[in-house]
Amino acid sequence: MAITLDVTNLVATADGRTGIPVAAVEGARARFAAAHSHLEAQHASGILGFLDLPGNAALTAQSVDFAAKATGRYRDVVVLGIGGSALGPIALRTALKPAGWNAMSDAQRAGWPRLHVLDNVDPRTIGALLASLDLAGTLFMVTSKSGGTGETMAQFLVVQDRLASAGLALRDHVVFVTDPAKGALRAIANREKIPALDVPPNVGGRFSVLSPVGLLPAALSGMDAHAIMAGAADMATRCNTDDLLKNPAGTFAVLQWLADTTQGRRIHVLMPYRDTLRDMAAWFVQLWAESLGKIQPGGASVGPTPIPALGATDQHSQVQLFMEGPQDKTVTFLTTIGHDADVTIPKAFADIEELGYLAGHSLGELLDVEQRATAGALAKRGRPSMTFTLDTVDAWHIGALFMLFGIATVYGGHLYGVNPLDQPGVELGKQYTFAKLGRAGYDAARAEFESLPKSDPRWVL
Amino acid sequence: MAITLDVTNLVATADGRTGIPVAAVEGARARFAAAHSHLEAQHASGILGFLDLPGNAALTAQSVDFAAKATGRYRDVVVLGIGGSALGPIALRTALKPAGWNAMSDAQRAGWPRLHVLDNVDPRTIGALLASLDLAGTLFMVTSKSGGTGETMAQFLVVQDRLASAGLALRDHVVFVTDPAKGALRAIANREKIPALDVPPNVGGRFSVLSPVGLLPAALSGMDAHAIMAGAADMATRCNTDDLLKNPAGTFAVLQWLADTTQGRRIHVLMPYRDTLRDMAAWFVQLWAESLGKIQPGGASVGPTPIPALGATDQHSQVQLFMEGPQDKTVTFLTTIGHDADVTIPKAFADIEELGYLAGHSLGELLDVEQRATAGALAKRGRPSMTFTLDTVDAWHIGALFMLFGIATVYGGHLYGVNPLDQPGVELGKQYTFAKLGRAGYDAARAEFESLPKSDPRWVL
Repeated sequence: MAITLDVTNLVATADGRTGIPVAAVEGARARFAAAHSHLEAQHASGILGFLDLPGNAALTAQSVDFAAKATGRYRDVVVLGIGGSALGPIALRTALKPAGWNAMSDAQRAGWPRLHVLDNVDPRTIGALLASLDLAGTLFMVTSKSGGTGETMAQFLVVQDRLASAGLALRDHVVFVTDPAKGALRAIANREKIPALDVPPNVGGRFSVLSPVGLLPAALSGMDAHAIMAGAADMATRCNTDDLLKNPAGTFAVLQWLADTTQGRRIHVLMPYRDTLRDMAAWFVQLWAESLGKIQPGGASVGPTPIPALGATDQHSQVQLFMEGPQDKTVTFLTTIGHDADVTIPKAFADIEELGYLAGHSLGELLDVEQRATAGALAKRGRPSMTFTLDTVDAWHIGALFMLFGIATVYGGHLYGVNPLDQPGVELGKQYTFAKLGRAGYDAARAEFESLPKSDPRWVL
Repeated sequence: MAITLDVTNLVATADGRTGIPVAAVEGARARFAAAHSHLEAQHASGILGFLDLPGNAALTAQSVDFAAKATGRYRDVVVLGIGGSALGPIALRTALKPAGWNAMSDAQRAGWPRLHVLDNVDPRTIGALLASLDLAGTLFMVTSKSGGTGETMAQFLVVQDRLASAGLALRDHVVFVTDPAKGALRAIANREKIPALDVPPNVGGRFSVLSPVGLLPAALSGMDAHAIMAGAADMATRCNTDDLLKNPAGTFAVLQWLADTTQGRRIHVLMPYRDTLRDMAAWFVQLWAESLGKIQPGGASVGPTPIPALGATDQHSQVQLFMEGPQDKTVTFLTTIGHDADVTIPKAFADIEELGYLAGHSLGELLDVEQRATAGALAKRGRPSMTFTLDTVDAWHIGALFMLFGIATVYGGHLYGVNPLDQPGVELGKQYTFAKLGRAGYDAARAEFESLPKSDPRWVL
């Protein structure tokens, strides 16, 4: 079981490849060693709790034990959450359950529940989902690290009302995932005797997928939570070195940072060539964007822009831009060695050239050839890329990948000179929202919001 | 029925807003008039077929009539297609069918079929979907403008074999959408008497959603194809002016181009604040990226990078980067006036501050306040944005939006000095793929691919 990282196409070696000069990579070794020391110091000071999750058997047991008791009781599990509370569960579902899981029959799902994630407050989506559910067979998992996220509280208020109207007890159909001691959800849990699992105080939302935030929906829907954690533990050990080219998280972070800051490659594409890894890209986008898109202490705005892609699909969409557009991107491929269940392309219409060459190959072979062809074509045109290869997409490798990108992001924070753990830029929008909804204590924000320039009819068409 | 575009927050008016100087907008009027003339000339020369689709009643009738005859025959419709053949149907499904459509029961869907889109060749996805379907009640729609798209041909070969194994006649379970005269699919249709609908030769894949590419899945699943076309027709008429500030497609294109080329705002975020419009962003990404990401005749690589976002969800993901990261982005919001089916947030736990302020508001109100708060916060921090507001999300407005962005893209081609209708950058990867699969006539490509620098163990970890 392993994940390899091949950065050959991202380094300008002597044979004429485009990329980061070897000397620049060598020159960054000391800088990386400092980043790794900083991570160790932060960890020692207790602020990088996600690194401790694989060793926290008691916390993992919270999810596994709750799921064991819930087995057979629910046909639908609905996660209420947004941002880090939703993206991890979505990535896990896409990676580890069959495609179209929620559209399958109970028999096809072998009795495991469907897994829905409500990651927005759009009334149309929430109304349609609630109308389609049998509430008596539904468990709502309300996830908020702070315990007070506005969108999630609004969803919860709607759900608790529907449950009450249906005569169903809250504590039988709701479970919270939140801070062990603080916040509104914890207070409600204590008062109403609603089961509540913990997000450790030192684990931030976007770093929380290996806590009950991700593990509870995983366990509830039949994924192997222990294997996820074993993969994460293995990767944490592997990345416990300040030797740059032995540390995949470090190499990923340093090369992205060099590409951005020395070559203007400020757009970092993550492009899985597996449908199962499609939503890992969305999870990564949050992690990379919200952690590194910051104002430095000196006042400079920095941070790469991550964008999601999917192979081979995006060869018919974004790849034209990657091949010929501005030299402002890196592409990181995600793939696996082979396929668990490949499909041979049957021979038919062999006299027609556009079909004849395909016969006898497999769909998986086609997908893999396309990945190598795209990487090769990018290299030929002087466009750098790198490739992560997983043995396979399973719980172990997904856990390892979550840990790898989490660690890489902490290194990125040091390299970019920003705090990867906060998100001060979203505060202003929250204040304006609270002010407009009449929440007490936001008079100043209301006044500021009302004083913003109004829409100008001259510029409305 | 209307779509308004408010660019107030994208123009630096006298009251101190950040954005494009008014003089620059005024100065671009002549340039835009030239772009519009160019569009008219291209249209007159016959190469902008998508503009003629709303007036092509016979073509629209192909989809509507086929769907009428198919009513009640199929429980599942599966689109086989990639890129422009898939993104339009996906955007339509998300916009115009209820959330979770494919997971609903037959009764909940009022007998209309489920709508699946296979937009990749991953064997896991295709295998899982085919295993879950009752083929006797399934219609496969095979979409390829050229009639020979490799991924789609591979999917089709698998499907035709499964149908044959089940003893089902191809012509009862397959419909093609392709060029009326050319290509492999047309040849097979003629030989096997498989029904085939037309994509006009002068309508490119990513501009084809208003042809049977989008209209057939729309009609098959119960959407109003005529209303889609009426909205598109209305928008085409509205954009038939070279007066910049009366033309929403022109204003959108010109301001994005000015933001990119005069202010370095090369990343164009499309951020709907409606779940229904979520996949319009993915459709737009293809259109904008593949049309404008090009090498100019003079050799310069140009083109903005579009990225998708979703409000309020991305306030907990990408918005931190948009607020504090580099000044290299514009944000375009999509929203509507109100909500068709809003949900009031019930009063409960009113003594807890994090929930108390929400009671009595509605989910829709919360979503809309968040959109205005985000736009306001961006403006306050000197980050430009603009907002499209639809009266509502329905067939008419979706048709209008497709047409608006299509026209804007043609203007964009003229402004950026590139041909928005081709995609030469993806050719090399295709050649390498054909070569590796042993297709005849690709010996030179094979030799070139094999000569590319190999993976270097020093750079693999």
